[in-house]
Amino acid sequence: MGYRFEAGRIYRMPTHFGAAHGPRQLPDDIAVDPKRGPRRLSVAASFLTDPAALERHLPDGFTLAEPVVTVEFHHMTDIDWLAGRGYTMIWVTWPATFVGRRDRATGKFLAVIWENLADPIITGRDEIGHPKLYAEIAEPRRCNGAQICAAGWMGFRFLELEVSQLRDAESDRRSAASDGTLMLKYTPRTGAWGEADLCQVTLTPAADPDNHIEQRQTGVGTVRFHKASWSDLPTMHHVVNALAALPVIEARGGAVTLSRGGKSYRDQRVLL
Amino acid sequence: MGYRFEAGRIYRMPTHFGAAHGPRQLPDDIAVDPKRGPRRLSVAASFLTDPAALERHLPDGFTLAEPVVTVEFHHMTDIDWLAGRGYTMIWVTWPATFVGRRDRATGKFLAVIWENLADPIITGRDEIGHPKLYAEIAEPRRCNGAQICAAGWMGFRFLELEVSQLRDAESDRRSAASDGTLMLKYTPRTGAWGEADLCQVTLTPAADPDNHIEQRQTGVGTVRFHKASWSDLPTMHHVVNALAALPVIEARGGAVTLSRGGKSYRDQRVLL
Amino acid sequence: MGYRFEAGRIYRMPTHFGAAHGPRQLPDDIAVDPKRGPRRLSVAASFLTDPAALERHLPDGFTLAEPVVTVEFHHMTDIDWLAGRGYTMIWVTWPATFVGRRDRATGKFLAVIWENLADPIITGRDEIGHPKLYAEIAEPRRCNGAQICAAGWMGFRFLELEVSQLRDAESDRRSAASDGTLMLKYTPRTGAWGEADLCQVTLTPAADPDNHIEQRQTGVGTVRFHKASWSDLPTMHHVVNALAALPVIEARGGAVTLSRGGKSYRDQRVLL
Amino acid sequence: MGYRFEAGRIYRMPTHFGAAHGPRQLPDDIAVDPKRGPRRLSVAASFLTDPAALERHLPDGFTLAEPVVTVEFHHMTDIDWLAGRGYTMIWVTWPATFVGRRDRATGKFLAVIWENLADPIITGRDEIGHPKLYAEIAEPRRCNGAQICAAGWMGFRFLELEVSQLRDAESDRRSAASDGTLMLKYTPRTGAWGEADLCQVTLTPAADPDNHIEQRQTGVGTVRFHKASWSDLPTMHHVVNALAALPVIEARGGAVTLSRGGKSYRDQRVLL
Repeated sequence: MGYRFEAGRIYRMPTHFGAAHGPRQLPDDIAVDPKRGPRRLSVAASFLTDPAALERHLPDGFTLAEPVVTVEFHHMTDIDWLAGRGYTMIWVTWPATFVGRRDRATGKFLAVIWENLADPIITGRDEIGHPKLYAEIAEPRRCNGAQICAAGWMGFRFLELEVSQLRDAESDRRSAASDGTLMLKYTPRTGAWGEADLCQVTLTPAADPDNHIEQRQTGVGTVRFHKASWSDLPTMHHVVNALAALPVIEARGGAVTLSRGGKSYRDQRVLL
Repeated sequence: MGYRFEAGRIYRMPTHFGAAHGPRQLPDDIAVDPKRGPRRLSVAASFLTDPAALERHLPDGFTLAEPVVTVEFHHMTDIDWLAGRGYTMIWVTWPATFVGRRDRATGKFLAVIWENLADPIITGRDEIGHPKLYAEIAEPRRCNGAQICAAGWMGFRFLELEVSQLRDAESDRRSAASDGTLMLKYTPRTGAWGEADLCQVTLTPAADPDNHIEQRQTGVGTVRFHKASWSDLPTMHHVVNALAALPVIEARGGAVTLSRGGKSYRDQRVLL
Repeated sequence: MGYRFEAGRIYRMPTHFGAAHGPRQLPDDIAVDPKRGPRRLSVAASFLTDPAALERHLPDGFTLAEPVVTVEFHHMTDIDWLAGRGYTMIWVTWPATFVGRRDRATGKFLAVIWENLADPIITGRDEIGHPKLYAEIAEPRRCNGAQICAAGWMGFRFLELEVSQLRDAESDRRSAASDGTLMLKYTPRTGAWGEADLCQVTLTPAADPDNHIEQRQTGVGTVRFHKASWSDLPTMHHVVNALAALPVIEARGGAVTLSRGGKSYRDQRVLL
Repeated sequence: MGYRFEAGRIYRMPTHFGAAHGPRQLPDDIAVDPKRGPRRLSVAASFLTDPAALERHLPDGFTLAEPVVTVEFHHMTDIDWLAGRGYTMIWVTWPATFVGRRDRATGKFLAVIWENLADPIITGRDEIGHPKLYAEIAEPRRCNGAQICAAGWMGFRFLELEVSQLRDAESDRRSAASDGTLMLKYTPRTGAWGEADLCQVTLTPAADPDNHIEQRQTGVGTVRFHKASWSDLPTMHHVVNALAALPVIEARGGAVTLSRGGKSYRDQRVLL
C-alpha cells in the first residue's frame, strides 16, 4: 500500500520514514525559546573590490549595489533543533538588488555558505535554497588581541580571516535599509545533464526580532582566500579560486559580535 | 550583467562561480579509467522481515517484491573525482517493483544512504536523487575472523553490522534479474511548507560493466540498528527507529567483497 | 657535534629541535594573563560507591578518605598556551590520603583523565604525571533543562554524564580542607617489560588564586560508564570496565560551573 | 589495602585498573599472526642536506653517518592490538652512529614521529622511547600517477610529500648494513623544571622477520615542510621549523611499498 505524505509537514530525502525534524519542524513536546538560543559568536571582515569582477558572479536579474564583499564566521552553540549542539557557518555576501517579473528586493546577496556539519547543509539547501558547502572550520580563537578564524577541506586551508585591534562598539549594527538576504535555489535535473529542475530566487526577510546582540567590538579585518588546484579541492576549487581572484582594493573593517536568539527561516519565500 | 549558465554543463548550488566538478563532470585534463577505480571493500548482511512493516516504508507506486532488507557498507578508496581520496557509504535496500504512468521497473529499492563525506551527499542528493544522510562511519575492520562495521552520529552509534565465519565464494554475485536501483528524488518547496517542488522516481540501470569483483567471501551476517531518542539523533531518529523496529525474522547471510571500477551514474534517469 | 640541553628549559620528546613550548613554557613575547583564560565550563556529578571496590584501585601508600566518586567534564576555551584554542578534559577522582616516607597529603586522588587533544595528553603525562588517555568528547550541551556530556573512543560511547534540575547556587564551592590533587606518575622501563623507570606520587597543591568562578548551578547528577569488550576499547577497556563495575549506591549531586583563569601547574611536585 | 603491580606485566598511566593491553601485551585469548598484519602502505622520499645543519639535531653520543633525510608515511590497517583498526605514522630519520659507554650501534636515527591516533603515541612514548607527536594525516592518495601524502595540525598543513613517475622495483629494499633504529627516550622531571628523569638511547634491532614486502615502486620524491608560527603550531613549531630550515641540496628518490606483517618491538632495548 505504501505510505502517504502527511499534509502540512516538511519532508526531506529519505521521505519513507515520515516527516523530518529540523530547524523548521521540532518535536511537539520540545519547549523552544527563540530568544534564548542559539548563542552566536560572529566574526566578520569586509573589503572593497572591483565591481566588474564581482558582477560576473551575480545571477540573472541581479545588479550589484556596492562592490564590498563581507565574509562572516558564525560559531553557534545551544541550537534548539540540534538538541543543544552547535556548528559553525561562514557566509560570503555582497549587496545587490533583484528585479523579477513580480518582485523587487535589495539586500545581501548570499553567494556561498560553508558549514562544518552536514545536517544543516542538507536542510538549508533543500528547504531554504542556502548555497551551502562543507568545510572543516576551526573554532574562532583569540590570540594576542586578535580574533582568528580559518576554514579548510581535507586539510587544505582555503580561507583565513582575522579581526585585530578590537575596541568596544555600539551594539546596534548600522544596517542600511534592506529587504533581507537574497539567494538562488537551484536543483539540477536528473538525467538531463545541464538542465535545471529548479532555479529560483529566494529571500530571507530582514526582520529577526528575537535576535539580541549582547556585545560588539569592531577592528581591522583581513580576509584571505587561498588559490587551490582541482586536486586540493576537487568539488569547489572554482568557488574558492573565484573569491581568491577578487582584488582587495581596500579593507572595510571587521567586527566581533556576541548574540543570542534568532529565527527559524520559516519566513523564507520565493521571489518571482 | 551577471553570468549565464553554460549549456550542457552540470551546476550545483552555489552556481555563481561556474559549473561544478564532481562524479559526473571531471576536469578535461584528468585521465580517468573507470576500470581501475574506485577500489571498494563491501560488507553486506541481509535479514528477512515482516512484509507489512516494510510496505509502510514504500512510496506510492511501489510494491514489495520480497521482505528482505540488505544493509551494505562500501568503503571506497582511489576515487577519481575526489583526486584519489575515498569515503564510505551505507546502503539500505529491499526488492520492489515500481509501476508508473509510463514506466515499470523491478530492482533494489534504495531506502536510505549514509555517507561520511558531505561532498558526495550534496552531489548525490541533487543530481541523482540519492537519499543520503551523514554518519560517522568506522573503517571496516577484521577481528577474530569477523568483518565488523559501525556507524554513528555525534558519538551515538546507531548501526552495527558484522559478517563472521567467512569462507571464499564464487566471485559472481547471484543477481536476480533486475532493472537496477530505484529511489525517490524529493525537494521540499521553499515557503510552502509541506509541499514539494520535486517528487520523482529515479532509476540507476543495472549495468555496470567496468565494475570487476576481485574477491568474495560469504558468511553469517548480523545487523543491528539501535533505537534513538530525538535528543540523540535530532534530524534522523525517525529513520533509524523505523529500521530498528523491523523485526529480524531470520538472518539471510552476509558477504565481504573486494571490487574495482564502476560507473559515474550518468545513466541515472527519471521514471514516469 | 650534536646539541646540548639548555639549562632550566623544559624539553619533551623529541628533544632534538630545542626546548618545547607548552603549558609551563610559553614564548617570551606572548603576554599571558592567568586571570583571563582559560574559560571553563565544568559539569560534574558524584556518587557514593562501595569502599572495598574503590580501594582496589588505590596504589600503595594511599587510603580511601570517602567512597565518593566524582566525574567532571571541563570544556575549556581561550587557552593561552594553545594560542587561544581549547579542548575538553574529563577527571575521575575520589578523596584519599597519601602517607609516604617523608610526605603526607590528603586530597582528590586523580584516578584517570580523558582528553580530546593529544598535545595536553603528552605534556600532562610527561611533565605532571597526569594519567591522561584520549577520548572523543562531545561538547557539553543543554537540552530540556539538563546539561549533557558524553565520551567515546572510535565511536564506542563509554561514558555519559548528565546534570538536570539545575538551580543557581553559591559560587563558592564548599571545599573540604584539601592539600590538593594526588596522582601517580609512572613510566615503564624499556626492554625490561613489567618493570618501571619511574613510579612516584605527585601533588598539585590546592591553591589556584587566579581561578575565578563566574556562575554555578547545582542539580541532580547521573553518571554511567558502559562496559566494553577488548575489541571495543583495546587499550583501555580495563579502565572503563573497572569504573563501570563500581556500584552506584547513591547519587551525590551534580554541578555546572562557569569559571575563568587558572594556574599552569608549575607548582606540581613529587611527594616522597 | 590498595593494589599491587602484577609481576612481568606492562603497566601504563593510569596503573590503578590493572595491566594495560597494547602492542606488546594482547589478551591471552586473541590469536595473533605477526605475518598477516598489519598491512602497510609506505610512501617515502629522501633528500640530501647540509651535514652541519643536520648535526645540530643529533644528541650527545651520536655522529652523522650520511646527510640524507628520509620522510616516510606508513598507512597501516589490520593492526592486531587495535582489534583490526589502523592508523598512520610519519617517520623522519637520517643515518647516524651512536657510541656509548658500553654499546655502539649504527642505523637510522629516528628524529621525530607523527601519528594520527593518541593510543600508539602513548604506548610508543612510554614503552619504546618513540618521539611521537600528534598530527592530522591525510590518507595517502594516488592522483595523476603520483602518490600524495600530507600532514597538519588543527588545519595547518605542515608537511607535504609526493612520489611521482612511479615504476616497479625489486621488492628487496637495498638496505645498508644496519643495527636498527636509534632514538632518545626522555622524560622530564616533575617539579624540577629543566631536569630529566630519564634520558637514554634505545634501539630497535634491525631484524623484522615477519615483515613481508608485497609490492614496491620507486619514483621521484619531493618533501616540503612548511614554516609555522607559534600561533599555528604552539607545541611543535620548533620541530617543523627546524626541518623546514634544512636545505634540500638534492632529491634522493622516493618509494611506495606495500607490505604485511611485522614485529611488536618487544625487542626494543636500552643502549648504554
